[in-house]
Amino acid sequence: MKSFDEITDIISTEIDKINWSKEPIGLYEPIGYVLSLGGKRIRPAMALMACNLYSDNIQPAVNSALALEIFHNFTLLHDDIMDRADVRRSQPTVHKKWNDNTAILSGDVMQIASYHYMTQTPLNQLKRSLDLFSQTAAEICEGQQYDVEFEQRERVEEDEYLEMIRLKTAVLLGASLQIGSWIGGAGDEDAQLLYDFGINTGLAFQLKDDLLDVYGDEATFGKKIGGDILCNKKTYLLIHALEMAKGKDADDLQRWLAISDEKLSDDKIQALTFLFNKLGVKEICEDKMQFFYGKAIANLEKVSVSDNKKQELRNLAENLMFRKE
Amino acid sequence: MKSFDEITDIISTEIDKINWSKEPIGLYEPIGYVLSLGGKRIRPAMALMACNLYSDNIQPAVNSALALEIFHNFTLLHDDIMDRADVRRSQPTVHKKWNDNTAILSGDVMQIASYHYMTQTPLNQLKRSLDLFSQTAAEICEGQQYDVEFEQRERVEEDEYLEMIRLKTAVLLGASLQIGSWIGGAGDEDAQLLYDFGINTGLAFQLKDDLLDVYGDEATFGKKIGGDILCNKKTYLLIHALEMAKGKDADDLQRWLAISDEKLSDDKIQALTFLFNKLGVKEICEDKMQFFYGKAIANLEKVSVSDNKKQELRNLAENLMFRKE
Repeated sequence: MKSFDEITDIISTEIDKINWSKEPIGLYEPIGYVLSLGGKRIRPAMALMACNLYSDNIQPAVNSALALEIFHNFTLLHDDIMDRADVRRSQPTVHKKWNDNTAILSGDVMQIASYHYMTQTPLNQLKRSLDLFSQTAAEICEGQQYDVEFEQRERVEEDEYLEMIRLKTAVLLGASLQIGSWIGGAGDEDAQLLYDFGINTGLAFQLKDDLLDVYGDEATFGKKIGGDILCNKKTYLLIHALEMAKGKDADDLQRWLAISDEKLSDDKIQALTFLFNKLGVKEICEDKMQFFYGKAIANLEKVSVSDNKKQELRNLAENLMFRKE
Repeated sequence: MKSFDEITDIISTEIDKINWSKEPIGLYEPIGYVLSLGGKRIRPAMALMACNLYSDNIQPAVNSALALEIFHNFTLLHDDIMDRADVRRSQPTVHKKWNDNTAILSGDVMQIASYHYMTQTPLNQLKRSLDLFSQTAAEICEGQQYDVEFEQRERVEEDEYLEMIRLKTAVLLGASLQIGSWIGGAGDEDAQLLYDFGINTGLAFQLKDDLLDVYGDEATFGKKIGGDILCNKKTYLLIHALEMAKGKDADDLQRWLAISDEKLSDDKIQALTFLFNKLGVKEICEDKMQFFYGKAIANLEKVSVSDNKKQELRNLAENLMFRKE
């Protein structure tokens, strides 16, 4: 069994091998830039680790793993245009460093590149891997669409939010694990359990993201605390706060949500954090995260390979839950 | 053998069958809108006609044909954002009718849909069809990138222009024919000849487009004459005019290119048309179009099926050359 670090080393080496220094430079250079910014490489790692559960040889899954990482970075590139986000991984985003048109077109060609790599999946797993990949890719766009629509709405229900993050974040983890396991030789039942493990890990992962935005440590988190609060993002915390706040708390909440004056940013973050604490939504979010984490571990338990082989995936899920960035 | 009209009927029926009325409406509705605006359906028609050269049963090629049409319409959708084009097929473009973000995201999901349909190619032709499709899709983005870059440049060489339109327009016709022929059962040599037929038809097609913009009849052309002239688009005509104009003609050309006052639009179109006529660039463009058309017909001649089977493709190429819209 390969360790997570060995797996991510393989991925880094393979990503670095891809030549983006080709003509037209203006089209391909931004792709090399985006992929060089790093990230946790969770999706390709999950694909290779799932393959590794069933096969010592993970080489047949490498191209599919690259496809998943390139696709993920493509979605970040296009999402950043839509969200007008200027910074990603402490560096300027593509539409900021170049321009919107470059970000659109380089993103398009990244999506094509991801399909190119997915098409190199071993032939006996090609059709169903591509079918799952396309279904997942469409679901991610649906998740992004709901995310955008929710920003315009006054209230979002918990169920709607969970479905949105399932689509936007969790399904790609599920698909990475399932495709990797297929290539390794998993049976249908195991492949489904690993997909579910990915879904539940993904849901917990996103709730952790919501928590880190408010309760993270700025130094280790790597970005400013309270970003979601300042743009009134309907996170799991805010959705519950809106639902639970009554009387003066509800008035305070609405008053702060109506304030967008940058000079009051720190006050707004402080006030909403105070309300979140008072209403106990931090605990509600942590409980829900634990709930999905528990489901994920239960899914993994049922996978029919020896327990020691699962240790790396178990560690990964745990690290994602208890991460500080 | 099916006629072109029978083929396009099949395509229309199949396109209409696709359900885009699904959630989230805001994501899928624009796709239904774009595909309902029509168009000549040349790419899927070429795929099915190429299949039909080798097989009476064209059903196995229908999904691949749909993929090619959806992909083509996706490129129009994203190109229209980049070009800030407000009208397509006499209707408002998606980013105009909805907004930029919708146009980006619906375009992304269209690209995914095109891969979904291409993945339904019969398994024995799946891998190479997808490989050619991805290569072609990337080339189309490269062509669009060159097109955008050329707008910023003062001079573009004829060779560069022909390479740009090969990438942006011709390769998708070539790929449509090649993939369709593979599914029908063509050998490698025929498949390559049909690809080349598509390339040469595509090059001639784009030169015809350049001619129609200046010399078309507004009533039948369906859009305003002189659109390329007004935005100083470096068409084959303008590239040659810039190369050939000397002395006062060169001064006149530069003077008119510097004018963007809308009140002088008609004068600018008249002046550039006059210069094009004087410099004989219309004939140069027509000759080049004929040259590629001739090469296309020669490619088709060499395809190893009986001559009468080729009649529909020969007619299609001819109709594209002598079209008025």
